Amino acid sequence: MGRVEAFSDGVIAIILTIMVLDLKVPQQATVAALLGIWPTLLAYALSFLVVAIMWVNHHHELRTAKRPDAALLWSNNMLLFWMSLIPFVTRYLGDSHVAPLAVAVYAGELAMCCVAFFWLQSVLCQHNLGNEAMERQYRRMQAKAALSIGLYVLAVPLAFMSVRLAMGILILIPISYFLPDKELLEA
Amino acid sequence: MGRVEAFSDGVIAIILTIMVLDLKVPQQATVAALLGIWPTLLAYALSFLVVAIMWVNHHHELRTAKRPDAALLWSNNMLLFWMSLIPFVTRYLGDSHVAPLAVAVYAGELAMCCVAFFWLQSVLCQHNLGNEAMERQYRRMQAKAALSIGLYVLAVPLAFMSVRLAMGILILIPISYFLPDKELLEA
Amino acid sequence: MGRVEAFSDGVIAIILTIMVLDLKVPQQATVAALLGIWPTLLAYALSFLVVAIMWVNHHHELRTAKRPDAALLWSNNMLLFWMSLIPFVTRYLGDSHVAPLAVAVYAGELAMCCVAFFWLQSVLCQHNLGNEAMERQYRRMQAKAALSIGLYVLAVPLAFMSVRLAMGILILIPISYFLPDKELLEA
Amino acid sequence: MGRVEAFSDGVIAIILTIMVLDLKVPQQATVAALLGIWPTLLAYALSFLVVAIMWVNHHHELRTAKRPDAALLWSNNMLLFWMSLIPFVTRYLGDSHVAPLAVAVYAGELAMCCVAFFWLQSVLCQHNLGNEAMERQYRRMQAKAALSIGLYVLAVPLAFMSVRLAMGILILIPISYFLPDKELLEA
Repeated sequence: MGRVEAFSDGVIAIILTIMVLDLKVPQQATVAALLGIWPTLLAYALSFLVVAIMWVNHHHELRTAKRPDAALLWSNNMLLFWMSLIPFVTRYLGDSHVAPLAVAVYAGELAMCCVAFFWLQSVLCQHNLGNEAMERQYRRMQAKAALSIGLYVLAVPLAFMSVRLAMGILILIPISYFLPDKELLEA
Repeated sequence: MGRVEAFSDGVIAIILTIMVLDLKVPQQATVAALLGIWPTLLAYALSFLVVAIMWVNHHHELRTAKRPDAALLWSNNMLLFWMSLIPFVTRYLGDSHVAPLAVAVYAGELAMCCVAFFWLQSVLCQHNLGNEAMERQYRRMQAKAALSIGLYVLAVPLAFMSVRLAMGILILIPISYFLPDKELLEA
Repeated sequence: MGRVEAFSDGVIAIILTIMVLDLKVPQQATVAALLGIWPTLLAYALSFLVVAIMWVNHHHELRTAKRPDAALLWSNNMLLFWMSLIPFVTRYLGDSHVAPLAVAVYAGELAMCCVAFFWLQSVLCQHNLGNEAMERQYRRMQAKAALSIGLYVLAVPLAFMSVRLAMGILILIPISYFLPDKELLEA
Repeated sequence: MGRVEAFSDGVIAIILTIMVLDLKVPQQATVAALLGIWPTLLAYALSFLVVAIMWVNHHHELRTAKRPDAALLWSNNMLLFWMSLIPFVTRYLGDSHVAPLAVAVYAGELAMCCVAFFWLQSVLCQHNLGNEAMERQYRRMQAKAALSIGLYVLAVPLAFMSVRLAMGILILIPISYFLPDKELLEA
């Protein structure tokens, strides 16, 4: 299991860090030019928070894995695949100055990340069959993941009606995930 | 051995993740512009799958290594060298909109990765001399690697006749590798 | 704790290394063109030193952590967030040829890194309550961090009066941090 | 020590891998355009070999370290600093189509890497005082490093007289390092 954790951590660390390469420096050294890059900075800060939260939750969840079987490796790889696209949709969000289509793509991308998390949680729940506290725990986390998927999917059409409302959802979801689930922490 | 595994994992994690830096954001926030980047997205998804499969197999194979000798270090470095070029040929495939020459270069590159895998497997087979089950196992894996080399080499001239057929081969090979060999898993 | 250290090391290693991607190669292969990129090289060398020092100190401090609780994870993530922006402000410093605004932004960014270090040190001090030598140690380190915050904040307005003086402060602070605190090393 | 090794491995893995980002894809999908990028490919392959050799030697040397003291941390950081510039000089070598000045800069950069290796070896020799076999071993390695420094320094003026001769030296030195020292391996 150690190598799966280490590999995932490596991939997530790189995802988290290379997003800074897309922060374009303002052409002129003026305050106006600096303020003009706010969409890129906002997109960067939001994605950093999202990836950091995913890492903390991934950290706690993977500790409950029992064996590096094919289901675990491939649900984990699927999660890493969708997470690896976060720098791309972040750049799109910033470069397009938070355009409706970019907000919709960003929301859809994060919905896929949550789907992958949901699958990984199913696999981990299987690993912990018989441990009732852990099963209950994973059912609660999957309910939370399902709710996030719903909200992210809702944000897709909403982006074309009101960018502000859609962005509000995109900002609220990570905040609701801010702390890893207490019961799992204590387990 | 721990440090060789960790270093390889680090290199593979970076290869897997930096490919997202080559996903160019569409200039305009329109659905047409977004759909226009499909060759880059296809190349990205294919290469992500290929590198993920290589990682899973490398993970299982390196666990059977007995000592970090020169043959192991350098066959492993050779593999990392050819794998490190995957982001380059991926970018070429996407930027050229799946041009015949780019498909041929991509196929040739992956053939070289398989050659390096074949060499690494020979070294690991040497490490496990006397263990009959393992030797048989490695002979089967090398037969599979040799078949892949043949198919990738075949895809090189085929790319200039039919891009679709060549791409079909490039997509089918990783699928045939999808699961690490069962016997090795159980070893 | 091992995974928190490994993840932080991964992020810091990437921050340290990707800054080289922003070192632009001179257009012409002449000595004049090579010398013309001195601001980028200076910014690179300064930031490499700053990140290396932060890594060494983070290395010594995190060894005193007792448990990966939420306070530790999030003060550490906050630190990584601010550190992750160092390549961005470094590029700004170099590309703007050490313009006053870029110097001020660089100083403000490093002030935020020190604030995050101060918070992380509070959390680690809490982890070591009852160990008097360690508590005294952390109080001294926090005093040093507070002094650095003050100097970095001072450098912000100073940059608009004298770029040289402000840069002098930015260069002196890392030198004063050069060696990790002796008492902690011996602890 | 584990964290110093892991951090160094992380930095070296990133250095090794991000160089591929500088391999520019030919504008047109023609064989002529592909062959036209040979200087970048040559520079990439040479630097990959150099960094891989440095990693293998670093791997064997750091195993003999006894404690993560300040001298070790900072000689190691100095080595990582000079190694981190390898992608920059590699890009310069490729982009300038192996211009004399770029060859000279490349040689000077690698000379600095060898100086840092020499310093690190002095520190490690200090760690192994009393172990005569190890001391003799480090003296031999330092003699080899000193010879490399001399040859790299020689290549600097030579580049302006004959690019081929200078490149010959740059290619021969890594080959002479190809295998880690046998005695150290057996220690």
